[in-house]
Amino acid sequence: MKNSEYDILITGGLLLTMSGDREDIMENPLIGIRNGSIALIEKLKADADHSYSAKEILDASGSLIMPGLINTHTHLPMVCFRGMADDLPLMDWLQNHIWPAEAKYVNRDMVYAGSMLAMAEMILSGTTTFCDAYFYESSVARAAVASGMRGIVSQGFIDLPNPNDPGKITEVAERFIDRWLGKYPLIIPALACHAPYTCSPDTLSCIKNVARKADVPYNIHVSETRDEVSIMRERYGKSPVAHLRDINVLDRRTIAVHCNWLEEDEMAILRDHDVKISHNPESSLKLAAGIAPIPTLLKKGVTVGLGTDGTASNNDLDLFGEMDTAAKIHKVADMDPTVMDAWTVLKMATIEGARVLGLEDRIGSIEVGKCADMIILDINKPHWVPLFSISSQLVYAASGADVTTSIIGGKVVMRDRRLLTMDLTTVIQEIKKIAENIRKCRVSS
Amino acid sequence: MKNSEYDILITGGLLLTMSGDREDIMENPLIGIRNGSIALIEKLKADADHSYSAKEILDASGSLIMPGLINTHTHLPMVCFRGMADDLPLMDWLQNHIWPAEAKYVNRDMVYAGSMLAMAEMILSGTTTFCDAYFYESSVARAAVASGMRGIVSQGFIDLPNPNDPGKITEVAERFIDRWLGKYPLIIPALACHAPYTCSPDTLSCIKNVARKADVPYNIHVSETRDEVSIMRERYGKSPVAHLRDINVLDRRTIAVHCNWLEEDEMAILRDHDVKISHNPESSLKLAAGIAPIPTLLKKGVTVGLGTDGTASNNDLDLFGEMDTAAKIHKVADMDPTVMDAWTVLKMATIEGARVLGLEDRIGSIEVGKCADMIILDINKPHWVPLFSISSQLVYAASGADVTTSIIGGKVVMRDRRLLTMDLTTVIQEIKKIAENIRKCRVSS
Repeated sequence: MKNSEYDILITGGLLLTMSGDREDIMENPLIGIRNGSIALIEKLKADADHSYSAKEILDASGSLIMPGLINTHTHLPMVCFRGMADDLPLMDWLQNHIWPAEAKYVNRDMVYAGSMLAMAEMILSGTTTFCDAYFYESSVARAAVASGMRGIVSQGFIDLPNPNDPGKITEVAERFIDRWLGKYPLIIPALACHAPYTCSPDTLSCIKNVARKADVPYNIHVSETRDEVSIMRERYGKSPVAHLRDINVLDRRTIAVHCNWLEEDEMAILRDHDVKISHNPESSLKLAAGIAPIPTLLKKGVTVGLGTDGTASNNDLDLFGEMDTAAKIHKVADMDPTVMDAWTVLKMATIEGARVLGLEDRIGSIEVGKCADMIILDINKPHWVPLFSISSQLVYAASGADVTTSIIGGKVVMRDRRLLTMDLTTVIQEIKKIAENIRKCRVSS
Repeated sequence: MKNSEYDILITGGLLLTMSGDREDIMENPLIGIRNGSIALIEKLKADADHSYSAKEILDASGSLIMPGLINTHTHLPMVCFRGMADDLPLMDWLQNHIWPAEAKYVNRDMVYAGSMLAMAEMILSGTTTFCDAYFYESSVARAAVASGMRGIVSQGFIDLPNPNDPGKITEVAERFIDRWLGKYPLIIPALACHAPYTCSPDTLSCIKNVARKADVPYNIHVSETRDEVSIMRERYGKSPVAHLRDINVLDRRTIAVHCNWLEEDEMAILRDHDVKISHNPESSLKLAAGIAPIPTLLKKGVTVGLGTDGTASNNDLDLFGEMDTAAKIHKVADMDPTVMDAWTVLKMATIEGARVLGLEDRIGSIEVGKCADMIILDINKPHWVPLFSISSQLVYAASGADVTTSIIGGKVVMRDRRLLTMDLTTVIQEIKKIAENIRKCRVSS
C-alpha cells in the first residue's frame, strides 16, 4: 500500500457540487479530503487506476454526495420545550409557556444537554453548520466542539424582564467573543439581540459595536409579527428596519431573521446595507406570524438563507422539510407556481446560507480548497425514483432520514446513520430527565 | 408451547388508539390479532403471566403503535412522472408535460409498475390504506393485492380529449365494479370523474349512478383552481358545487377533492349532502392552486380526510409531511395559530380519513373488532425527544422514516423497514426503465 495521500477518499455515486449556476452533476466522482479541506475532485476512472490512497475510503456508489446543509437560525437548547405547548395564540405561548419555562429551566447544563440532542438531530438530518442564538451560548459552543459540528454561536441579549446596562453587556459580549474567537476551527462566536421591540436602542447598538469590531455576525429577529411592527411605529414613529438603520446596526454582517412584514422601502434599506436574511417559513406558519416576501427580496438581490428557528415553534430541525415548505408556501402566497423553484431553495439551504453567515469562501459548495463539509444520501429508495431532477427530488421528496453519512471539517461525524461523536443514548437520557422535571412542575403548578 | 390463540401478538411500547376524543395512550399494551382483525387489547402484565400465545410476537417496547395512516387521494401511477416537470405554470404543466406524457406512456404495465413503487413508498412511510383514482385501475388493484395494501381503487373517467358515450362508460364502470367488488378482502372498487369542468353532466351522473347502485365511493376534483370556478360559472351559470348538486351526484359516498375555492353556500350544500372532503394541501400549494377553507368546513361538521394527490404535484406520498403542512398552512391563512391543532390533523390522517372512505367501522383506529391495520414507529430518536405530546410529535416532528413495521389486514407487510411483500430492487428497476424511456423521448422531442 502506498503512503496515505488523503485523509478520506470518497468514490462513486453522484456529486452535486452547488458551485455553478445550475444543477451541476458529476457521475462517479473521486473526492479527496486532506487536513479538513477538499483537496481533489476528479472523475473516478473506470479501471480504478488512481495513484491516490487514503486512511479512509468511503464508497458512495448508488448515493448522492452534496454540500452539508446550513441552518441560519436556531435556538438549539429549546429542544427541551419541543411539543410542550403547541397550537396556542402567540402571546399566550410566549408569556405563559415559553418565557416562564425559560426563566425556570434554562441554565448552563440544560443548554449543553439540549444542544447535544439538537446537534444529534441536525447531523442525522444532513445539517453540518448552524447559526444559533440563545443564552449561556458558551455551552452551545462546548456542545458543538464535542459533536464536531460547525457552529456560529451567538450570545443573546434582551431587555426583558429588565433593561440591560450598556457598559455591562458590552463587557459580557466582548468577553464571549474573546473566549471563542479563533480558538476552535469550527466555532465562530457571534452576537444576537432579540428584536427591535424587546431591546433598547442602546442595547441594540452597543452589541452591534462589539460584533462590528470583531467582524462577526449580529443576529436579530425583525418584523416577525404584525403586532411588533405596530409597537415599533407607535414607539419610534418609523418601521423596524428604518429604526435599525437609524441607530446604525445594519450592515453586511447583520442577519435579519423572519422579516415577515417588510414594506417596500424596508426591503430597499436591507438591500442597500447588504443585510442578510434568515427565512424560517415553518416557524412563521406554525405561530401564524406571517409569510416573508422572499421572492421579492430575491428579485431585489438580497441574500437569503434558510433556518428552522427553535423546535418549540417548528417542531424539528430537518432542513429538508424546511426546503419543501419554503418552495411551496410562496407559490400559493404569490399565486404563482414558478416562484421559489427547487434550485433556488436548494441554494438557500447551501451556498446562499453560507453567504448569509459570511462563510461562502469556506462552505456551501463542494470545491477544491473549501472545507470538507458534505453529506452522502442513500437515493436507492422508492421516493427517489425516478430521478429526473436532483433539485426537485431534494426539495420536494427527500427527507433528512435519507442522509447516511456526514463529514464536517474533514471529519466523519456520522456513518451509516450512526453518530460517531456522541453516545446518543446518554444524550437522550439527559433530556428525558430535564423533561420529566418540567412535566412534574407543570402538572403541579 | 400452547396452541396458537393469535396470529400476532404485539407487546409493549405505547399504544395510541385514536378511538377516543383526546389523545388516549396505553402504556405497555398487549394486542392480539386473529384472522385479520384486532381480537385483544389489554395492559401487558408486569410478570408476563399471560395465557396467550401466537404464531408471531412483535416486541414494540420503546416504540409507538398507532393506526396505519389513510391517504384519501392519490394518482399512484404518476410516480413515473415525479420530478419530470416542476415549478411551472399550472396549464403549461398539464398541457405541455403531464397530459402528453400520460397520452404517451400510460398503459397497463406502466400503471402496475408505478403502483408497486408507490405502494412501497406508502408502506415505508406508514400508510396502510389509499384511495386511488386513475386509468387502467385494475392494474392498481392487482398491485394492491400483490403489495398487501388496503386500497380503494377508482376507475377514472374524463371527457378529454373526446367526450364519452354515456352508455359505453356505464358499461365500462359496471364491468370494473363487478370485477373487483367483494373479490379480495382489502380491495374496494370505486369510480372517479376527473372534475365538473372536464366531464359533461351526462358523464358525471351516469358514473355516479353506477357508484350509487354498488354503494361505492365516487371521487371528483372540485374547485381546485380559481380558473375552473370561472369556467363553471360561465358554462353553467352556477358554482361547481351547485352544478354537482343539480345533476344529483352529491351524497354521503361522494368524495370532493381539493375544494380550494368554495363559497359559503357551497360549503352548506356539501354538509347538507354529507359529502366527504379530501384535503391535499401540499399539491395545492405546489401548483399555486389555493388553500381550502378546511377550518370552516370542520366547524360546519363536514368530514375531512387527508391526501397527498399524485407525486407529480407533491412530490412524495409521505402523510407525515402532509400532516405537518396541513397543520401549519391554515394557521397562517387564518392568522390564527389555534386552528388545525395537531390532534385534529392526526384524526384527519386516521379515523376521519376512514370516515371519508366509508370505512370507519373497519379502520382508522385500534379497537377490538376492527381490521388489524397498524404501524409501529421507532420513537427512540432525537426528534422524538422529549415527548410532551404524541399528537404534536407525530404531526410536527415525525417523519415517515420513523415507521419500522406495518401490519395491514393482520399481515405484516414491513418489518424493521424491510418490505415483505415485494422485491424492492425489481420494483425500482422497472421504474428506472420507464423513466429512461421518458427521458429519451423528452430529449429527442
